[in-house]
Amino acid sequence: MPTKFDPPSGTRDFLAREYETRERAFAQIRSVFASYGFEPLATPAFERLDVLMGKYGDESDKLIFKILRRGEHEESGEADLALRYDLTVPLARVAAAYGSQLPVPYKRYAIGPVWRADRPGRGRYREFTQCDLDTLGSTSVLADAEALCAQHDALSAVGLGSFRFLLNSRRVLAGLLDAFGVPADLGPGVLITLDKLDKLAPAEVAAELRGRGLPEAQAAELVGVMTAADAAEKIRDVLRGSDEGAAGLDEVDTLLSVVAGQVPQERIAFTPRLVRGLSYYTGPIWELVADGVPGSIGSGGRYDHLIEQLGGPDVPATGASLGVERILLLLPEPEGGHVRLDVAVTVMGERFAARSFGFAAAARAAGLRASVYLGSSGKLGRQLKWASDQGARWALIYGAAEEEAGTVTVRDMVTGDQTAAPVADLTEYLSRLAR
Amino acid sequence: MPTKFDPPSGTRDFLAREYETRERAFAQIRSVFASYGFEPLATPAFERLDVLMGKYGDESDKLIFKILRRGEHEESGEADLALRYDLTVPLARVAAAYGSQLPVPYKRYAIGPVWRADRPGRGRYREFTQCDLDTLGSTSVLADAEALCAQHDALSAVGLGSFRFLLNSRRVLAGLLDAFGVPADLGPGVLITLDKLDKLAPAEVAAELRGRGLPEAQAAELVGVMTAADAAEKIRDVLRGSDEGAAGLDEVDTLLSVVAGQVPQERIAFTPRLVRGLSYYTGPIWELVADGVPGSIGSGGRYDHLIEQLGGPDVPATGASLGVERILLLLPEPEGGHVRLDVAVTVMGERFAARSFGFAAAARAAGLRASVYLGSSGKLGRQLKWASDQGARWALIYGAAEEEAGTVTVRDMVTGDQTAAPVADLTEYLSRLAR
Repeated sequence: MPTKFDPPSGTRDFLAREYETRERAFAQIRSVFASYGFEPLATPAFERLDVLMGKYGDESDKLIFKILRRGEHEESGEADLALRYDLTVPLARVAAAYGSQLPVPYKRYAIGPVWRADRPGRGRYREFTQCDLDTLGSTSVLADAEALCAQHDALSAVGLGSFRFLLNSRRVLAGLLDAFGVPADLGPGVLITLDKLDKLAPAEVAAELRGRGLPEAQAAELVGVMTAADAAEKIRDVLRGSDEGAAGLDEVDTLLSVVAGQVPQERIAFTPRLVRGLSYYTGPIWELVADGVPGSIGSGGRYDHLIEQLGGPDVPATGASLGVERILLLLPEPEGGHVRLDVAVTVMGERFAARSFGFAAAARAAGLRASVYLGSSGKLGRQLKWASDQGARWALIYGAAEEEAGTVTVRDMVTGDQTAAPVADLTEYLSRLAR
Repeated sequence: MPTKFDPPSGTRDFLAREYETRERAFAQIRSVFASYGFEPLATPAFERLDVLMGKYGDESDKLIFKILRRGEHEESGEADLALRYDLTVPLARVAAAYGSQLPVPYKRYAIGPVWRADRPGRGRYREFTQCDLDTLGSTSVLADAEALCAQHDALSAVGLGSFRFLLNSRRVLAGLLDAFGVPADLGPGVLITLDKLDKLAPAEVAAELRGRGLPEAQAAELVGVMTAADAAEKIRDVLRGSDEGAAGLDEVDTLLSVVAGQVPQERIAFTPRLVRGLSYYTGPIWELVADGVPGSIGSGGRYDHLIEQLGGPDVPATGASLGVERILLLLPEPEGGHVRLDVAVTVMGERFAARSFGFAAAARAAGLRASVYLGSSGKLGRQLKWASDQGARWALIYGAAEEEAGTVTVRDMVTGDQTAAPVADLTEYLSRLAR
């Protein structure tokens, strides 16, 4: 039951523990992307309405969060701004705005929230994080390969164990249609149906192909080749009979050979039935799948004309996207309780407050998280209870006895052991303990 | 002249260099806040409209970006959501929503964008980052002192040299009015006028006080004390004559003594004329100022009833905010050109592409940023030009000669010197170079 204090439907509050898990993963991904020479880009949460509308298709346009005009125009009920729906349209705008100031090629990554007024559901949010990397201005298959490798390394860095790339090329698909003599007008539909081979039985796919107008023999042959035990070999043979197919095959093989040193062989496979976003991909395409997870956890491909269609300059482009929200769900839970503090500093009366503050600073100087007790109890037991609740490894105690001795009592919160540290050497003392 | 490719009015795109400067500062601040045991909190970009409206006053309500209802309701022209205006109202909502799941006290920091439909201007944006830390659930002046110290350490961490805290207490202000016998109904106005003592001449302030209804002698005396050479001492004497004033003074002095070990004396001063947000502060208040910068670069104070007024539970609270957008403007420009890559890997023909990919990976394994050449030229000169444009420290070259020798040519892009590294030991070789 949502209460009036819940965040808006489809959005989430991230308290410390979840926030830290997410940020750790994002930092690992950023670090990998940066190591490939991709540079960060951050754009505003909203864009002018006309920048976004009409770029994603009618269905998607309905999912755009629009922002009401302000001041005297508010009453019009019209919108002039809208929350960004993805990170690609803003990239196209940036490419147009900063053109010659950007390096060539322009390799950028972006990790940030996007907003879609989708019906919220399990794992589907209205505010969620996208994680993209793209290279604008290179036609080289090396750029495709680099994006794929960066994605691979990022997944390894966050600790995801089992995942695979399904690799194909739009030109392979064009070659397939060509080799089987599929009429051009049936092409797109045929491909959409072939993409269902991982979900439907071969006979069902063949039936759907016939329904789309493909002659029975052709449909049977196509499905037969695609589902044969040695499908990859058979399809390679077929593709060699078409110029476009041969070119696509070459593209796939070059990519496979280039990434071979970094992506283990069992993690990437030529997958001729893979289709994906027909309307904008133009070269290699790939999808990332993980065992036991329906759908994909990432994707990528070359989209040489999309940036222009989205309002940017006409530049070749390739890129990849990690489904970080899904990936975060696959990561193992961090072990142990939530540790808020390393060192909890008790305050045995107002007279010692300044001293306690100094001890917390000494602990921080040792690289430890430290705070003084902020409650109202003067009792040591209550303060140690607080230290324990914080997950603190040590508590520091300083009262009249310690003042006289010139030491701080360092209590190990696990064993209960107490030792005396010289006040003047507290930072060093704690550094040694923490080592 | 804005173009249609500019980001919306009052918002900014952050390309690599600026992004990195900002993120470096944010990371430094986060690290300091975490070292004090403050934990992160992230809330959605938008809240339900009713959560935000009526919390900031009429003028501010007009600056809230409202989000149009969706689907069949879009035509109504009504809003149901709005972009967050600050980070405090979301904190109040979170305190209400997660109450008992939160630690006591709940010490949280938040660094993130907020949106205000203000008229954009120099240093005034419609999307800007706020940076808050707050402690909910402690009445102790140590909590106030901790917030102030964390703010101090954060500013030091980002490298800001000269800044000062102006410290006061709401109770000191109440004590002043009390000691001077200012009628209760004139109190707030008198304080607002006294706050102008840093901008207006004493005579002007006295005139404004008379205009507010204060008898001439009282106005002159008040201004006289506040502007005396030994104002702080004079005011201390005056305050001791009022219970509330004495209590406020005690609060200020305790805070000063507690932070004395960490905040150098010249960086903090009791400033009785400091007023700030009369309507919500209840205890110590402070403002951060920097030399040569009009206005403040941060502030803080105790606001014991505000969380409840904002829709949260009735908890004591204190907190501090850094004006990070202004602070970022004060930081020194990073030196030198923008370095995109440490190692630029040339590709001397398709035959060597896989090898080049491997070399880039070897450089990354050495902790270096590395990328292969993605352009279309096979000429070494063009590729080295690219390496130079990236700011790369080294270029790697591998062609037929290197293949035969089993080495990679490592070119120092500054000196032009070239050395031969064994292919098998490239990671180690580059690690040594980079040390």
